[in-house]
Amino acid sequence: MSRYFKSDNTAPVAPEIMAALQAANEGYARGYGDDPWTAQLEQRFTKLFERDVKVFPVSTGTAANALALATLVPPYGAVLTHEEAHIVRDECGAPEFMSGGARLILTGGRGAKIAPETLAAALDANPTSVHTVQPRAVSITQATELGTIYQPHEIAALSKLAHARGLRMHMDGARFANAVAALGCAPADITWRAGIDVLSFGATKNGALTAEAVVFFSPEHVADFEFRRKRAAHLLSKMRYVSAQLLAYLDNDLWLKLAGRANALAQRVATAAGSACFEPVEANEIFLQLGDARIAALRALDFEFYDWGASNSGQARFVVSWCQSEDDIEALCAALRELLDRD
Amino acid sequence: MSRYFKSDNTAPVAPEIMAALQAANEGYARGYGDDPWTAQLEQRFTKLFERDVKVFPVSTGTAANALALATLVPPYGAVLTHEEAHIVRDECGAPEFMSGGARLILTGGRGAKIAPETLAAALDANPTSVHTVQPRAVSITQATELGTIYQPHEIAALSKLAHARGLRMHMDGARFANAVAALGCAPADITWRAGIDVLSFGATKNGALTAEAVVFFSPEHVADFEFRRKRAAHLLSKMRYVSAQLLAYLDNDLWLKLAGRANALAQRVATAAGSACFEPVEANEIFLQLGDARIAALRALDFEFYDWGASNSGQARFVVSWCQSEDDIEALCAALRELLDRD
Amino acid sequence: MSRYFKSDNTAPVAPEIMAALQAANEGYARGYGDDPWTAQLEQRFTKLFERDVKVFPVSTGTAANALALATLVPPYGAVLTHEEAHIVRDECGAPEFMSGGARLILTGGRGAKIAPETLAAALDANPTSVHTVQPRAVSITQATELGTIYQPHEIAALSKLAHARGLRMHMDGARFANAVAALGCAPADITWRAGIDVLSFGATKNGALTAEAVVFFSPEHVADFEFRRKRAAHLLSKMRYVSAQLLAYLDNDLWLKLAGRANALAQRVATAAGSACFEPVEANEIFLQLGDARIAALRALDFEFYDWGASNSGQARFVVSWCQSEDDIEALCAALRELLDRD
Amino acid sequence: MSRYFKSDNTAPVAPEIMAALQAANEGYARGYGDDPWTAQLEQRFTKLFERDVKVFPVSTGTAANALALATLVPPYGAVLTHEEAHIVRDECGAPEFMSGGARLILTGGRGAKIAPETLAAALDANPTSVHTVQPRAVSITQATELGTIYQPHEIAALSKLAHARGLRMHMDGARFANAVAALGCAPADITWRAGIDVLSFGATKNGALTAEAVVFFSPEHVADFEFRRKRAAHLLSKMRYVSAQLLAYLDNDLWLKLAGRANALAQRVATAAGSACFEPVEANEIFLQLGDARIAALRALDFEFYDWGASNSGQARFVVSWCQSEDDIEALCAALRELLDRD
Repeated sequence: MSRYFKSDNTAPVAPEIMAALQAANEGYARGYGDDPWTAQLEQRFTKLFERDVKVFPVSTGTAANALALATLVPPYGAVLTHEEAHIVRDECGAPEFMSGGARLILTGGRGAKIAPETLAAALDANPTSVHTVQPRAVSITQATELGTIYQPHEIAALSKLAHARGLRMHMDGARFANAVAALGCAPADITWRAGIDVLSFGATKNGALTAEAVVFFSPEHVADFEFRRKRAAHLLSKMRYVSAQLLAYLDNDLWLKLAGRANALAQRVATAAGSACFEPVEANEIFLQLGDARIAALRALDFEFYDWGASNSGQARFVVSWCQSEDDIEALCAALRELLDRD
Repeated sequence: MSRYFKSDNTAPVAPEIMAALQAANEGYARGYGDDPWTAQLEQRFTKLFERDVKVFPVSTGTAANALALATLVPPYGAVLTHEEAHIVRDECGAPEFMSGGARLILTGGRGAKIAPETLAAALDANPTSVHTVQPRAVSITQATELGTIYQPHEIAALSKLAHARGLRMHMDGARFANAVAALGCAPADITWRAGIDVLSFGATKNGALTAEAVVFFSPEHVADFEFRRKRAAHLLSKMRYVSAQLLAYLDNDLWLKLAGRANALAQRVATAAGSACFEPVEANEIFLQLGDARIAALRALDFEFYDWGASNSGQARFVVSWCQSEDDIEALCAALRELLDRD
Repeated sequence: MSRYFKSDNTAPVAPEIMAALQAANEGYARGYGDDPWTAQLEQRFTKLFERDVKVFPVSTGTAANALALATLVPPYGAVLTHEEAHIVRDECGAPEFMSGGARLILTGGRGAKIAPETLAAALDANPTSVHTVQPRAVSITQATELGTIYQPHEIAALSKLAHARGLRMHMDGARFANAVAALGCAPADITWRAGIDVLSFGATKNGALTAEAVVFFSPEHVADFEFRRKRAAHLLSKMRYVSAQLLAYLDNDLWLKLAGRANALAQRVATAAGSACFEPVEANEIFLQLGDARIAALRALDFEFYDWGASNSGQARFVVSWCQSEDDIEALCAALRELLDRD
Repeated sequence: MSRYFKSDNTAPVAPEIMAALQAANEGYARGYGDDPWTAQLEQRFTKLFERDVKVFPVSTGTAANALALATLVPPYGAVLTHEEAHIVRDECGAPEFMSGGARLILTGGRGAKIAPETLAAALDANPTSVHTVQPRAVSITQATELGTIYQPHEIAALSKLAHARGLRMHMDGARFANAVAALGCAPADITWRAGIDVLSFGATKNGALTAEAVVFFSPEHVADFEFRRKRAAHLLSKMRYVSAQLLAYLDNDLWLKLAGRANALAQRVATAAGSACFEPVEANEIFLQLGDARIAALRALDFEFYDWGASNSGQARFVVSWCQSEDDIEALCAALRELLDRD
């Protein structure tokens, strides 16, 4: 049997969440979110974020991102984001679709992070006039697609620039749990306290079956989100089963335990790989410069993972999931040490 | 505790399906449908329909309908459908959204069914020219939104008219199981053998957690469906959990057992209600002309159901679900007999 | 040479307007509306309508209608309108396109006019909920597509109903001049004084080359119209040539003289046709029940006009343009009198 | 009176074209392109391009570009283009709008030209999968937005790369006349013979009132262009007046005479400016590195032109139009020589 490091979304559902689904499966419940589980969500997220929030469950991270952005940005608007962002590379144009054709304006930046000076330059290079699309939002990912993490002050600096120009801040938190676990901060510290207006709060990659939540930190930003969600066919009739997942995910800090474990295991791999890591390992992803021969050798040992970068770049991505076995990690570390002549 | 007859989507998940979810929750599985459960779907649906089909799981019926129609119809196209159709009344414009702005052209028809002569007239009234939207598809619902059922020859007559003009046939099968169970026919008899090109195969209302499938009966009609599904954020990363539901739904004819039970219970309610039924009860929905006083009396007895028609119409809709208790049915029948002075 | 009664848009450009184009063709002028001709428009229309207005030139009536509606209605919105409306039958779905997929909800009504009770019923039949599209505007045509005219109090009654439910009022004024000339009223009387929020002010059918104007009666309704116009490629770089047409159109009441002449000639045809008119002739269009033989006879006499209604309905539409010759009218009247045995 | 070098679209209409409009203004003509002027277009463009073509007049360059691209690219598609392209910077997202949300993927390149190796790298960096937008077209501008010109072999090299991957080639020819006049080539040499599939053939910037044409070099690429044009409100009812402009534009090589004159005058300015030109002057645009003081000095002398680049870049753009006076050119040359200490 192979050892999977392809993605955290190949992992199964955490037992606590599966148990919650079973527990929710009793009797009737009104549809479309008018049920007791969904009713608890707002209170639970309000407590989690230490602020009144509006929460809307959806079933995919792409839905969360694209619907959130469509709510922030008009069809003739634009979203500034990093060229490595999931919304750019992995959503088949969902943000453009949901928004009615808004544009993604791309920036560079080390570790898939946008630096404040880069954002400032991008804003300067895109002045508004009736002849152009209108920048209206910035979207950042936490943890990023390259496994790095924004510090609270880094987010605050971006938000300050964005808000000063009338843009709103969106965070793609598909791996939000990994970021919070790694930083040891309050969820508020990297969201609204740092100027984030809307968060795509992910759970699917970290132990849920299929559950994400769009969290608005200011009620006025919700606008017509509910119509957009319904119209995009993301208002689930049997909503209780998504809400129950989210509640179980938060219960007893399960989300942080699962993410914390994945992060810690990833650190062990990073230590084994040493300088082969071409990005800092700050969450649960490891990016390695291995060369094609070592990549082939690892595959021969039954490790599954993705190639990275251009063809023949010799780069590979490993993602550690919440349920990765000790044995998998041990095996990967040993193989890397041997292949890299590290001991 | 109240007695629920609001909708079949307020019911819980059938134990067999919940067990299948639990069983699927072992180890890793590749994402986005490249898993063993999804791999079985095509073969299972091909056997079910006695023909090679293409099957695509999604999580809501609205997604199934709107994505299927968007694949059949260009932005400047039109879909002919009944004015009571779910795609018209209950999807917040999802077909328009997914298709890039195609139009729904509405017809009347008893029992929410389109009669062939009505379709012919609608086609005549919408000739094509560069100045108008182009009719490209017909969408019918089986069982209909008023609980009636198309006979195979009725569907075939519509398909013949539609195909002769170059239109394709879509069936909204949110309650497809109820129709097949009631007709006692082969699934093929009311789909491709009767000219249906694409089916939204529903399971959520009949015991699944959240699982629907778009079934194409000709591979060429699939076109760019997969891009549209992804772009609309309906390609689930943990697809195995939707596919596992669908497999369990078909195993041992579970789908027909559940739907057959609901249909049979609905017949008992229809018998109790007698001539108060203003639509024939052919599946699991009962539409009653009760008057406001009897409606209030039923609510006082803790029955939950929807008002129907215009305000003060005195009409009500009752939906019987797969898990409706004998006790609920008995109580409703008794209450109706008493209120309607029938014995 | 044939005698044209097909449409008023087959007529040439009025000499006064052609002269204005020539006069505007001197030297440089800043692009995109920042020119002296466009600068005069707002003042001229403000005077015309006895109220501060915002005016935006575009080059087609379909652009005026669809962009105006897209500004009033969100993608999940709906426009209530008559089933004979140009936006329904002759714009290939432009309103749906420009709005991002909003729906047209259709009503009936004699003479292509919506009666207040019909509008009230349509509003009642389309209550708002997250499951449905949201009615946000009513669109009426003045003069209508059947050559009839709304009286000021009829418009006011519709506006009162619409505004009470939060809907806005749009008027398609492709033949606005014919209506004002026929009613002998102030332009304000059938627009803002009667509750109209936005007007598509047509000139192309009544002597312009290609010139229409979107007139907003309240600045806040303009919203993002300018971005939508640009994005739809309807912001002309050499705007002066459209604005110059509109100015000449209003100069010395040219617009009313041209429309008044067409109306008067249409009356002569109506008199000749007598009871063959199946719609009242109130503007410059005549709808006749002739039978197929008489239709053929007229065509044999070199009259050009459109069939109307279903095939073999025996109905025909004649449109009288601003420049219709006396000779054409005389000939048509004589032919009709003879064919209809009227003398 | 100021001396205008802001844009070629601030110039008036060439007398020959105005005369053609006057000549077309006789009697009735069927609407929507079914007129004698439009009927001649296909033959005239077929002769011009030495190949059977399909031609569709529209009134703006943005409409031509966005409708052409929407015909080539599905909503989930992408267009590779230069970051300086008009479709990127000056159309408020019209390509995204018309296509239903397709993406523009941007490249760099000197002189606003895409180099073959840059295109190859961009294609490699955007492999297709269901998770991403699908590159389907390349759009280049001739002459470019920086006043440079692609040689025929440069276009052919790009087309070869694009076609090999299944992408189609679009050319934004807003200044096509300037390119052909400068190259002294056949129009075919830089279009279909070099692999271009669709051309936006511009006339407005070079003497027309408002007239552009979309030229398809293969009938199968036309696809549903006509529905898209109508739906976007760009099918003019009085089409004869646009077609008449295009015919007059081609008569007696007027288009090449006007463009050739502008190009020649621009060369004189380039000579006067010498090394201050930071882009080669190959058509009718001159880009100068002047410094803020000289820019202010020129403005004080009543020259009108646009700043270029970032604020305080000290760069300016001058566009020479077909009707630029000798006096304007002499004055600009003299001022530049003096300011730049050149003599």
